[in-house]
Amino acid sequence: MSNRVQDGVRLTDGQRLDWLRLIRSENIGPRTFRSLLNHHGSARTALDALPGWARRGGASRPGRICSLEEAEQELASARKLGVSFIALGEPDYPARLRMIDDAPPLLAVRGNNATLARSMIALVGSRNASAAGMKFAERIARDFGDAGFVVVSGLARGIDAAAHRATATSGTVAVLAGGHDRVYPPENVPLLEQILPNGAAVSEMPLGWTPRAQDFPRRNRLISGLAVGVVIIEAAQRSGSLITARMANEQGREVFAVPGSPFDPRCEGTNGLIKQGATLVTEAEDVLAVLRPILGQQLPLAIEEPDSVAPLPEPDGSERERIVALLGPTPVGIDDLVRLSQSSPAIVRTVLLELDIAGRLERHGGGFVSLV
Amino acid sequence: MSNRVQDGVRLTDGQRLDWLRLIRSENIGPRTFRSLLNHHGSARTALDALPGWARRGGASRPGRICSLEEAEQELASARKLGVSFIALGEPDYPARLRMIDDAPPLLAVRGNNATLARSMIALVGSRNASAAGMKFAERIARDFGDAGFVVVSGLARGIDAAAHRATATSGTVAVLAGGHDRVYPPENVPLLEQILPNGAAVSEMPLGWTPRAQDFPRRNRLISGLAVGVVIIEAAQRSGSLITARMANEQGREVFAVPGSPFDPRCEGTNGLIKQGATLVTEAEDVLAVLRPILGQQLPLAIEEPDSVAPLPEPDGSERERIVALLGPTPVGIDDLVRLSQSSPAIVRTVLLELDIAGRLERHGGGFVSLV
Repeated sequence: MSNRVQDGVRLTDGQRLDWLRLIRSENIGPRTFRSLLNHHGSARTALDALPGWARRGGASRPGRICSLEEAEQELASARKLGVSFIALGEPDYPARLRMIDDAPPLLAVRGNNATLARSMIALVGSRNASAAGMKFAERIARDFGDAGFVVVSGLARGIDAAAHRATATSGTVAVLAGGHDRVYPPENVPLLEQILPNGAAVSEMPLGWTPRAQDFPRRNRLISGLAVGVVIIEAAQRSGSLITARMANEQGREVFAVPGSPFDPRCEGTNGLIKQGATLVTEAEDVLAVLRPILGQQLPLAIEEPDSVAPLPEPDGSERERIVALLGPTPVGIDDLVRLSQSSPAIVRTVLLELDIAGRLERHGGGFVSLV
Repeated sequence: MSNRVQDGVRLTDGQRLDWLRLIRSENIGPRTFRSLLNHHGSARTALDALPGWARRGGASRPGRICSLEEAEQELASARKLGVSFIALGEPDYPARLRMIDDAPPLLAVRGNNATLARSMIALVGSRNASAAGMKFAERIARDFGDAGFVVVSGLARGIDAAAHRATATSGTVAVLAGGHDRVYPPENVPLLEQILPNGAAVSEMPLGWTPRAQDFPRRNRLISGLAVGVVIIEAAQRSGSLITARMANEQGREVFAVPGSPFDPRCEGTNGLIKQGATLVTEAEDVLAVLRPILGQQLPLAIEEPDSVAPLPEPDGSERERIVALLGPTPVGIDDLVRLSQSSPAIVRTVLLELDIAGRLERHGGGFVSLV
């Protein structure tokens, strides 16, 4: 029986455990997970093959593999917290999130799972928001709720909290940067409890995981990925909300921004987004008018990565050597690697996967990679 | 000798008097002036022909024709005030204003005429501006001055005054809605005196003319017409600044707007303009980056109206009757008039000109006309 990512098929309990072990193993991210699953046909086989991949990738030490006991322990703790795991391809998995190319293989969900089946609008902004910004967030969030949308945000102080609070009844989703038992900021735990009956909290991180700084940008791709469009209210230059906006753009989501005075540093980011083409928003209808026609469209087909269609070819020793020799600390394009190594794209991808699993590869944006 | 509108030719003193008499005569606006001049070849001949036009147009009483004495009187008063008249087509006439299809035949100018030869940016906004809006106006006006541009505005309270004040040294042009001896608002007379040494005040209205409410929108087309681009800072819904923006659009000028909070009624107009496609501005460079390439382009050729190429044909009585019968108080398109009357476009234009001069025609936007 195959574990290949397929729509509409539920995992068995055993398969779910294997998936959890694989995604919780060292050096395995959502993209690597998907490549391995598609190559090996099941997480079980992939787990057995991990030491081989790491060895071929030249790992100085083998990456830690999540044990069956650890995975069972996480499942048990999750059950106690009321958290369930939804696997990529299962019917409950949020339809739009499914389409991003680094969608989490397993989404840990707490609250009312049905919320995830509805269309969502993301609403994010400053943690140290102005009173006007908070008021605007509440008003527009309520209007989105009245229009039948679920509001998704990051449970941060300021704009995020205002957006969740205003939609506690109509339905809202909080995406966490850490585990479900490590809610950040702690002051928003009561708010989270308040939104769960009609909403949900989701996370891709393990239980017990305290969020580090780098986990927030990573989390932001899920906020935009769940939504049809992203509305940014008050964002300074170089703020996390702008990362969400960038990810939304990369994921093909509509980006909306609320304008403000040129003298207000909290509006530099949003004004800048509008300059770059985001839609200016002063009321909910500005957003709804753009999103309504999109909802009517069928979802695009899942982006199948080239390596997902068939098992990867095995490079011979000299090919591997040639490709690794072309890599260094300076990021290089995968296209250039293919051209310069004179290997097939599939071979290059295989070698990069080996290096990935060996913990030796860093992937940058735009198809660039470097050695760690 | 012909008075036809030609570039680069100066009028004789006698011709200038005739032009002044014609444009100061009843029912003669800039468009009618141009049609008459192009039909008759000179303002002198047009003046003699006015009673005939009015009669053919069915005037209940002939329109008042400005006498030679009145015109000489205005020229003398103007000279005393330091006001000179620049005629459309003369070398000093502002190059961009020349291109709008209702450019004033005579522009009354006070101050430093050379200012009008430089590239201009219009800066307009609320009369009851916020402190932040005034501060922004001063800052961006100064930056435009530093970049070599003349700032043109309407001498109103608030944003206009701030823009003029900040560019009193670098060069600024105030466009008046009344005569040069009827400056509005009176409190800005000292500011006007302050900008004249390095700038100018311009008006198309007669000396002694106290501006009425309807003269301000009319004036606004000159503010946008003089400029390469128009920047709007703080504008409420249905404000005069939005009229300037609309005229700028119709004239093919670039429109820029400064954003603000959705809660600030003074920013509803500017946020609305950005939604409709105006460029969002938070600093001078946002404007300069758009305008620099435009300055490099050659000015478009003057829009020659179809009736300006040759004398108009004379309609016979039945044609005139048929066309007038098609008109009523409901605006109708000139195209439809041509089609329904089965007359030539030139004949229809002639009849409309007759009605115009008879004071019986109202011209609406988009080529629509109705009987008064």
